[in-house]
Amino acid sequence: MSATATSPSLAPIRFETDPGRYKHWVFEVAGPIARLGMCVQEGEGLRDGYQLKLNSYDLGVDIELADAIRRLRFEHPGVRVLVLDSRIPRVFCAGANIHMLGSSSHAFKVNFCKFTNETRLYLEDMARETGIHTLAALGGTCAGGGYELALACDEILLQDDGNTAVSLPEVPLLGVLPGTGGLTRLVDKRKVRRDLADVFSTVAEGVKGRRAQEWNLVDQVIPSSRFQQAVEERARAFAEVTGVRGRDAQDAPVVLEGLGGAYDDGGVRHRFVTLEVDAPARTATLVVRGPQGPPPPDPAAARAGAQDLWLLRAARELDDVLLDLRFNRPEIGTVLLRTEGDAALVGAHDRFLEAHQEDDWFVFEVAMAWKRVLKRLDLTARSMFALIEPGSCFAGTLFELALAADRSYMLDDPERPCTVALAGLNRGTYPMSNGLSRLQTRFLGDPERLEAALGLSGPIAPAEALEAGLVTLAPDDIDWEDEVRLAIEERASLSPDALTGMEANLRFAGPETLETKIFGRLSAWQNWIFQRPNAVGEQGALTLYGRPERPVFDWRRT
Amino acid sequence: MSATATSPSLAPIRFETDPGRYKHWVFEVAGPIARLGMCVQEGEGLRDGYQLKLNSYDLGVDIELADAIRRLRFEHPGVRVLVLDSRIPRVFCAGANIHMLGSSSHAFKVNFCKFTNETRLYLEDMARETGIHTLAALGGTCAGGGYELALACDEILLQDDGNTAVSLPEVPLLGVLPGTGGLTRLVDKRKVRRDLADVFSTVAEGVKGRRAQEWNLVDQVIPSSRFQQAVEERARAFAEVTGVRGRDAQDAPVVLEGLGGAYDDGGVRHRFVTLEVDAPARTATLVVRGPQGPPPPDPAAARAGAQDLWLLRAARELDDVLLDLRFNRPEIGTVLLRTEGDAALVGAHDRFLEAHQEDDWFVFEVAMAWKRVLKRLDLTARSMFALIEPGSCFAGTLFELALAADRSYMLDDPERPCTVALAGLNRGTYPMSNGLSRLQTRFLGDPERLEAALGLSGPIAPAEALEAGLVTLAPDDIDWEDEVRLAIEERASLSPDALTGMEANLRFAGPETLETKIFGRLSAWQNWIFQRPNAVGEQGALTLYGRPERPVFDWRRT
Repeated sequence: MSATATSPSLAPIRFETDPGRYKHWVFEVAGPIARLGMCVQEGEGLRDGYQLKLNSYDLGVDIELADAIRRLRFEHPGVRVLVLDSRIPRVFCAGANIHMLGSSSHAFKVNFCKFTNETRLYLEDMARETGIHTLAALGGTCAGGGYELALACDEILLQDDGNTAVSLPEVPLLGVLPGTGGLTRLVDKRKVRRDLADVFSTVAEGVKGRRAQEWNLVDQVIPSSRFQQAVEERARAFAEVTGVRGRDAQDAPVVLEGLGGAYDDGGVRHRFVTLEVDAPARTATLVVRGPQGPPPPDPAAARAGAQDLWLLRAARELDDVLLDLRFNRPEIGTVLLRTEGDAALVGAHDRFLEAHQEDDWFVFEVAMAWKRVLKRLDLTARSMFALIEPGSCFAGTLFELALAADRSYMLDDPERPCTVALAGLNRGTYPMSNGLSRLQTRFLGDPERLEAALGLSGPIAPAEALEAGLVTLAPDDIDWEDEVRLAIEERASLSPDALTGMEANLRFAGPETLETKIFGRLSAWQNWIFQRPNAVGEQGALTLYGRPERPVFDWRRT
Repeated sequence: MSATATSPSLAPIRFETDPGRYKHWVFEVAGPIARLGMCVQEGEGLRDGYQLKLNSYDLGVDIELADAIRRLRFEHPGVRVLVLDSRIPRVFCAGANIHMLGSSSHAFKVNFCKFTNETRLYLEDMARETGIHTLAALGGTCAGGGYELALACDEILLQDDGNTAVSLPEVPLLGVLPGTGGLTRLVDKRKVRRDLADVFSTVAEGVKGRRAQEWNLVDQVIPSSRFQQAVEERARAFAEVTGVRGRDAQDAPVVLEGLGGAYDDGGVRHRFVTLEVDAPARTATLVVRGPQGPPPPDPAAARAGAQDLWLLRAARELDDVLLDLRFNRPEIGTVLLRTEGDAALVGAHDRFLEAHQEDDWFVFEVAMAWKRVLKRLDLTARSMFALIEPGSCFAGTLFELALAADRSYMLDDPERPCTVALAGLNRGTYPMSNGLSRLQTRFLGDPERLEAALGLSGPIAPAEALEAGLVTLAPDDIDWEDEVRLAIEERASLSPDALTGMEANLRFAGPETLETKIFGRLSAWQNWIFQRPNAVGEQGALTLYGRPERPVFDWRRT
């Protein structure tokens, strides 16, 4: 069972990169049109043991894609459209590398899929938030995860060369699902009729030509002779659509320089965000420190000092720490969320964000970076307890950390007072995957309580926070130490699988969206299948892929 | 691994029962108040190997509960409220029997949970559809599945005796989820705050007294001395609420007599519904035959002849066949849905149903029986192909079978014409779990096409049905045999797990509801956990429950 296999790679994975280091993508910007050309280097997989043939991808390929999307938003304010294509002849993308998947641990597979899902959603977020749409130009085979990547784009153009097809061969060839959003986007985003989606998802060779368009699997099918020209024309047409946030080619780009964190077995140290590991207790403490000074006077100054801008840097550092936690520290089951700093300064930075997010594209991008990292926190399969103590600064944006936590403990000690605070940003700037703010989700059944909480201006003391439902528990100084310690110890003693399932259900009350369907329904089924002997057993389809033997199935349906 | 364990019971399970045969429930009706008293007989489990202590339940207990709910609706038109309580001192219900779960195959566990989930939803359906609300009277321990049963009721009264608690001890004690709707109903139905739900779901001993009410885990906490009286008063108050469908104690009840089907290895034979098994091909043909004569002249005649009323009997028989298929024939992966009969007669019966479902409670109940069985079809984890051939009667209600199928094949042969037909009932009488009709789900992205299809009156020929998007494929007489045969063979060759996951994702496009969240998100996670060594391995928590050893966990989070 791969569920108990040791991951072949023990080297920690790093998530920071930049275009100068890309191995697998050509990233070009010409005026309003950006191009990401996939050209995966076969021998440059993240670890040994597989070849990335035919533009198949592993996590390393996707880390670069995620980086490029992020940079597009910050570093290229003049861009209006992204064209996603391939620089390898006759293939767009063959999907996730099967040998990589087949030789990975269960936990790695699950986290790999989660990261690729987040990255695909970033393409859709970009279109919705900034108006930068993505055009998938399929000039060759587009299979599995390759087609799932295309599905995340806003428009799909398919070359009609008698050969190029789109396909989801996971079910017929591998015994697993198109789990990177594929099944969900087919019927929920592109609204492919469910019976046609059924046929499509079981035909290994896929669908090409006119039928692909009729079934709405692609938007246009274009003869080879006119394909490049048609892509160009569609890109230019998209480029003429005005960006929704006043992005302007005249604005100076904001270059995202490296964060330069320090990583070791003891944790991660960034300037504002630190992860400190307590391995024997299987817990880690994640500290976010507040700003050390006031916010910049205006957006231009914010842009000029972006590398040191607390609002941007803390979000980027937190993102990096969460990914490190997910991939490199699988045995850490509980994360204690703490903050340190001056809540008044956090409030000042929040007010800066709130004042300018509507009228300045860069400040808006900073808010959206927080939105993304807070969603990543919601989707991180570790128990999270927020500890609110004197010296903390759980205010506004940083109070979202407490709201994202599974529980929050706030010390109620008159001798050592501590407070929390809400800001206008808590109203809806950072929606969860379910489309609601964390406060809306928290008070799902009680809109009056929601408004009452949002009406609390200024610092909120423990008793008031407890009464308002903003924190879970507020022990006094006599109980604090024992109560918190016991809660952490108890959490660490529970089955990690049961906790993952429980948290995935309790965190997302309320409406479901395409996004929650992908992370809930689709991913949960895929995780189930990723453990089934029919897929990952010695004679399972995923295990035997590419070998002469046929898989042997246990035919019992569940 | 239980995934490959043979189920200890090889005796087929039968789903028909009646109050005279109940072992585990006392079913009493007094005027407008019905009572279901749980008194599970320890030694009367559905198979050997476990004792049903403390009102813990197995499938047999739930089969009786489902039967009682159904009979309440048909046989007791004067009832206005159902009180669910226990007839065993100091315990309401200890939940699903752990030793039964621990010794069951993976497939059985999954199907057991699905059936109990359906039954709990029937309580909520009943309240919404007929106004018969359910009151849970918790006069003793209410744990795990016991509390999940209470959560499905409309009101929960808890005895405040210093001892009686509600609890979900699955995560801390068993390493699995409260998967019978528990987690979902906590945050989505009762809107318990997610952090309080987190605390509650990890505290094995549960929550009692005032805190249970403050957290909205129960509706009222009542001192022991006044408990029985308070239950009585609340029941009477509910009984005074007028039923929403003109149910009347003066109406003659409609007694649901036994169906008397014949079951063997070759299949199931009922009067109108037949299942014919082709074991080597791992397929079965499910045939629904249409009515043999016209509908009754009026609802009173329908009631008087209910035992032979096609509309009711076919729905009941189909339900029985689907349950037989799920539990007794796990290796049948593909079901071919066929109909036989006179489409005009089906149309006449449909018009009868449509004409009287609003003004006659019994006819309405018949429609709701179809709604339930069609949902059960949607939720049955087998591939379904509808085969539409000459002599078939896929019209109106029976066309829902084709719409529920993963694909439909319609023979297009001018020599042997065949047609399908829609009726007003296809507009919304039979919503799926997602709250949409099957046609709405099918044409999710194309409301115009939906209206165009609903506008097709009269028989629809193959070309027209294909054009309207009502069938998947319409091969001609030359291609039919090969195309259908190949499709069936190909389906039977695919991984049963991948198909289960694929179908669970493609069938439920569109909005999510409490119901789809239970069957999608919650059940999928539970199925994942039901395979994890941390739960079901030799040292897993579920396996070791009740033994002195402590479980041993693989601490890696996924």
